[in-house]
Amino acid sequence: MNHQVISKAVMTRLPMYYAYLKEIPEGEFVYISATAIANALELGEVQVRKDLALVSDGGKPKVGYLREGLINDLERFLGYDYTDNAILVGAGKLGQALMDYSGFSDLGLNVMAAFDAAPVREMTESGKKILPMEKVQSFIKANRIRIGIITVPAEKAQAVCDQLIECGILAIWNFAPVRLEVPEKILVQNENLATSLAVISRHVQAAVRERK
Amino acid sequence: MNHQVISKAVMTRLPMYYAYLKEIPEGEFVYISATAIANALELGEVQVRKDLALVSDGGKPKVGYLREGLINDLERFLGYDYTDNAILVGAGKLGQALMDYSGFSDLGLNVMAAFDAAPVREMTESGKKILPMEKVQSFIKANRIRIGIITVPAEKAQAVCDQLIECGILAIWNFAPVRLEVPEKILVQNENLATSLAVISRHVQAAVRERK
Repeated sequence: MNHQVISKAVMTRLPMYYAYLKEIPEGEFVYISATAIANALELGEVQVRKDLALVSDGGKPKVGYLREGLINDLERFLGYDYTDNAILVGAGKLGQALMDYSGFSDLGLNVMAAFDAAPVREMTESGKKILPMEKVQSFIKANRIRIGIITVPAEKAQAVCDQLIECGILAIWNFAPVRLEVPEKILVQNENLATSLAVISRHVQAAVRERK
Repeated sequence: MNHQVISKAVMTRLPMYYAYLKEIPEGEFVYISATAIANALELGEVQVRKDLALVSDGGKPKVGYLREGLINDLERFLGYDYTDNAILVGAGKLGQALMDYSGFSDLGLNVMAAFDAAPVREMTESGKKILPMEKVQSFIKANRIRIGIITVPAEKAQAVCDQLIECGILAIWNFAPVRLEVPEKILVQNENLATSLAVISRHVQAAVRERK
């Protein structure tokens, strides 16, 4: 697997290719070209060709890629072929929703348990455990967890983040609307729903005003 | 309200300022300066000053901003002060989770109902309606809905998107891992959890390998 640093733009397009290739009905295309993918997704042909070359050396002139092979190469490159275990802190509505979201398992993420300072129930709807925060350290160590998902309120997120890193977490998936400070080697991936909502709201308000 | 086009970077920082200002305990700072905000969030002072000038003209030399006033100006600018109604299509786990996520109401989003091609239940846990897809058009028109949230599988997303736009939707919040084609005046805001997971997974695998 190629572990060079990949630009954010490329990392956004690769899962798109993957989703597109998986969508094609079984047996419809055995081979598929970069041109066909570029046309289907309305992207530049050169760009698609370059992106795919990062991921796979299976492309043949005039034929393209064996579709199944390219799917496998993308899975390997994106880490979807390998299941990462994770824990989640903050078992509120969003936290429990993410715990129960079955789509993650297709992408190689297994959220093993949730932790909460004051759990209001013992498990999520799908039966995953919600444990008190005191148990987070022993759980992370016992299960060699590397990924922590933070869904606590903004003002509690930094303290939770610090605690997870102390326990050995290497990557934080942050859903709290706050900037987290972390040591250099730790990755923070922010999922800022509040920003998205602001962008949407501004667009709608401007569009409605324009019509008047 | 200022409706000029704002860069994505600015639109990411503004909700951060908002979250930070809201976190400060009641009465602790009556006035707050761009410098104090920059220090707290580890951002450049000049950048914060410029960002805030877009949003508010309440800043006074040597004193800063009246905190409550700045919060109000940010709310207005980000559209959080105004409740937008939305509908959601695809009442699977993620869809129902988003329906029940109470954090959206603080940000001015009210998800009124969910629609599904084959609803398996009549309402979400919090009591919001899940309606059959046949009713989406009349509902959108009757309630003058402008925002549609898409949480259907990737291969169904484009058809749902087309249908929503035909009903008068102006902005799509897309959680399906697929690029949607829309007319020029329609906004698509993508929330690509699959991309985030790939970034996290690659980081963790590289970090673990480095230690060996």
